Amino acid sequence: MSPSQIVTQKRMTAEEAAAMIQNGEVISTSGFTPAGYPKAIPLALAARAEALHAQGREFKVSLYTGASVGDELDGSLARAKALNFRMPYQSNKEIRDGINSGEIEFVDFHLSHVAQYLRYGFIPRSTTAIVEAVEVTNDGKIYLSTSGGMSATFLKSADRIFVELNESMPKGLMGFHDVYVPKSPPNRPPLPIYHPGDRIGTPYVKVDPSKIVGIVTTEMPDKTPPFRAPDADSEAIAANVIDFLLHEQKKGRLPEHLPYQSGVGNVANAVLSGFASHPQIDAISLYTEVMQDGVFELIEADRLEMASTCSLTLSPAGQVKFRANIDELKHKIIIRQQEMSNNPEVIRRLGVISMNTALEMDIFGNVNSTHVVGSKMMNGIGGSGDFCRNAYISIFMTPSIAKNGDISAVVPMVSHADHNEHSVQVMVTEQGLADLRGLSPVRRARLIIEKCVHPDYKEMLTDYLDFGLKNAPSKHTPHVLAHAFDFHKRFLETGSMKMREPAGV
Amino acid sequence: MSPSQIVTQKRMTAEEAAAMIQNGEVISTSGFTPAGYPKAIPLALAARAEALHAQGREFKVSLYTGASVGDELDGSLARAKALNFRMPYQSNKEIRDGINSGEIEFVDFHLSHVAQYLRYGFIPRSTTAIVEAVEVTNDGKIYLSTSGGMSATFLKSADRIFVELNESMPKGLMGFHDVYVPKSPPNRPPLPIYHPGDRIGTPYVKVDPSKIVGIVTTEMPDKTPPFRAPDADSEAIAANVIDFLLHEQKKGRLPEHLPYQSGVGNVANAVLSGFASHPQIDAISLYTEVMQDGVFELIEADRLEMASTCSLTLSPAGQVKFRANIDELKHKIIIRQQEMSNNPEVIRRLGVISMNTALEMDIFGNVNSTHVVGSKMMNGIGGSGDFCRNAYISIFMTPSIAKNGDISAVVPMVSHADHNEHSVQVMVTEQGLADLRGLSPVRRARLIIEKCVHPDYKEMLTDYLDFGLKNAPSKHTPHVLAHAFDFHKRFLETGSMKMREPAGV
Repeated sequence: MSPSQIVTQKRMTAEEAAAMIQNGEVISTSGFTPAGYPKAIPLALAARAEALHAQGREFKVSLYTGASVGDELDGSLARAKALNFRMPYQSNKEIRDGINSGEIEFVDFHLSHVAQYLRYGFIPRSTTAIVEAVEVTNDGKIYLSTSGGMSATFLKSADRIFVELNESMPKGLMGFHDVYVPKSPPNRPPLPIYHPGDRIGTPYVKVDPSKIVGIVTTEMPDKTPPFRAPDADSEAIAANVIDFLLHEQKKGRLPEHLPYQSGVGNVANAVLSGFASHPQIDAISLYTEVMQDGVFELIEADRLEMASTCSLTLSPAGQVKFRANIDELKHKIIIRQQEMSNNPEVIRRLGVISMNTALEMDIFGNVNSTHVVGSKMMNGIGGSGDFCRNAYISIFMTPSIAKNGDISAVVPMVSHADHNEHSVQVMVTEQGLADLRGLSPVRRARLIIEKCVHPDYKEMLTDYLDFGLKNAPSKHTPHVLAHAFDFHKRFLETGSMKMREPAGV
Repeated sequence: MSPSQIVTQKRMTAEEAAAMIQNGEVISTSGFTPAGYPKAIPLALAARAEALHAQGREFKVSLYTGASVGDELDGSLARAKALNFRMPYQSNKEIRDGINSGEIEFVDFHLSHVAQYLRYGFIPRSTTAIVEAVEVTNDGKIYLSTSGGMSATFLKSADRIFVELNESMPKGLMGFHDVYVPKSPPNRPPLPIYHPGDRIGTPYVKVDPSKIVGIVTTEMPDKTPPFRAPDADSEAIAANVIDFLLHEQKKGRLPEHLPYQSGVGNVANAVLSGFASHPQIDAISLYTEVMQDGVFELIEADRLEMASTCSLTLSPAGQVKFRANIDELKHKIIIRQQEMSNNPEVIRRLGVISMNTALEMDIFGNVNSTHVVGSKMMNGIGGSGDFCRNAYISIFMTPSIAKNGDISAVVPMVSHADHNEHSVQVMVTEQGLADLRGLSPVRRARLIIEKCVHPDYKEMLTDYLDFGLKNAPSKHTPHVLAHAFDFHKRFLETGSMKMREPAGV
């Protein structure tokens, strides 16, 4: 197939595109996880920034993406000191270091909120959009690659557009996307998704072709990490989740055909693997924001009804498998814009069961997803709030300890609350599962300590609770603020949350 | 009009009804704020409990309501030591004392979530429902009085029903309610409210008439507090909110016809009063959970398009005014079940501007709505999370100081996070307004200190921020956990958040 006329006319090198970007610009790009983000222009932009810095000139941009992106974008720009502002999520070490050192300003958003805030004018507009695509037509139809992100809103609101036409991506990705941008209130109709597989938009983003100023062809694959088999803790967490779901089913509290949202990483893969192999599990559907390799196991076991996602975050081996089965998969997978994949209205309507990873939990049922010791940004809240707040059942999962046991994932008080007691229903570690629904704070605390806490920390947390019941201003949530962060303070001072000598609080 | 046959057949005294309620039962009642709650049976039940206790017998029940209720229900049962469990919200001193002393277990819920959790079987079912009504028909149509609450779900799931037929309430209340119970996922259709005034259900709750075991006639009015004119702080807060809205309008960021949610109390009344009198404000609509006297000012100024609420919480004088104009008001006011008045899907679709009161805010944009010094339950989260998470713009308001200045409403870190930095967009005190949209944590902190903090606390909070920027683990959210609660600790120790001698942290 010969390239379309627009590609021939507007083709340029990544360096030519990068040269058109000015100091101080607000750049918005495709990408949601290391999937579907632009690669060549960001690398050229980082090189340009370094060259300008070497000449003693200033060069920094603001960067908006769907969520985290690959190293060619976040990593290279951070290393080149070319970023002054970043939103709404990241998971790259160098960006994170820049955020925590104060070099890069970062705003952490609920992922379903950002696109509409941009359209409402609440956040400065991005003038330049750079998106990865697999096809561009003469009349301005842009077929995105492996993620939806916020590309539709970015493309519609930018003054000029650069497209990275990734020739290493299969053209068969055309047809996976469902691009829909809700109208603004007060004239917004209901969002017409009634099943995870409903298509309500177009398979492309339509733009004014005159806004496309450059098309760069590339052949760089999404830089995803290799698939790692789940470790023992992840498998234990997954087994606890599946036991719980089967119990709920037996009790008549789990209607058939509720879709699942499953977060990123090892634990999420282990849960999907469990769904694929457990003898008592039926076929499921996914209404989720990230699709990982785990989905193949479900498909191979003939247990995937339909999957709605915002990105295909497949390992290199998973990418090969995807290409080999792309035509068949098109009937199973829909890639949406994050405003729709994470939409509260749809999540509550469908009854999604959400499963997200916690960074830290407390005994009263609050979850920290973002801040280490209340201060250091890890990645961001991502979609966890979009899903848990609107879920049929909201589940949070984490191994009970970290750093060889020097950190307990369960603490007296979370050092940052991203999901509070009102929105967290089930907590799971490899130790067990605590079903917190309908329990008052003290009952929650007893149950979490019994079921979820690592044996090394049970006594210390029980001591805190009992001390509070004697000394706190109230027995409802018996926090003693003077000791609420003792675990964290000890960790900061000694490198461990454990006490040297066992003693009361 | 003679009473319907069912009323004649099932009429009993409050004492007879109370005698049928057993120790350990789970009672659910109508009521949302001191409006539309049962009065006579609870008073008789409290008397029964006291009599049984005097005989040395146990008698306690669990109580589910829509939200807070009047003293005849919450107060009398708490004073009679007749409660062991309460949900999902309260604002009565004696209940609060019981919760904080550990006598009464309390679970605090997002008000839009509870009814569906009950239907899903996540919370123990209530066997006995007691609702206040203005009419009951032979075929089991119950016309609720002044609040929607969760009565429809309570009535449908209970085994037996007691009705308090309140003959002091106008029969004209028939027609105000719109009763709609959403289907359960995964087969829930979109909730078809496109405008605050849309009626989608029935004006009554339909029950199997054989479940109605007793009807008690009463003449007791809703025990609401008298209207108090807004104080100077409330008026200053309202003026700041209106300035902001006019500014947004001028910038083109405030589409016409976005409805408002306005919380309870003085500040909310002051804002509505401002809307009624400001020369540049057009007619508005309300999509809210509580309607107070402020609504009359809007109507008198011909500035109310339509009001959707869950309750009519009118002062005694307001109740008189309501009756005098009831036929006209029926075209302006809809009373919904709280699952609909506070529904995330509808709130996000309509673009509701939410205005809620904060108990405490922190410099990074988190809000505490529930817990005094992280421990003592005040009232509960109520609908604040339902609205702010889904609002077009979410506004939180509070006077900058309390207790003659010994408490600063803005602290380094909230002692309980009900609404976090991701969901709070605008903070307002009588000092000024901070528009936090799109700002990173440190910029938020500078702006909140500049605009919202009382002069007595500006230096202390700036010191905390600057100390953190030098000493915290990260400059992103520069919290130093060892000092995060210094304000609270000082208040607990000395009775004031102020330092004896001005000094750094």
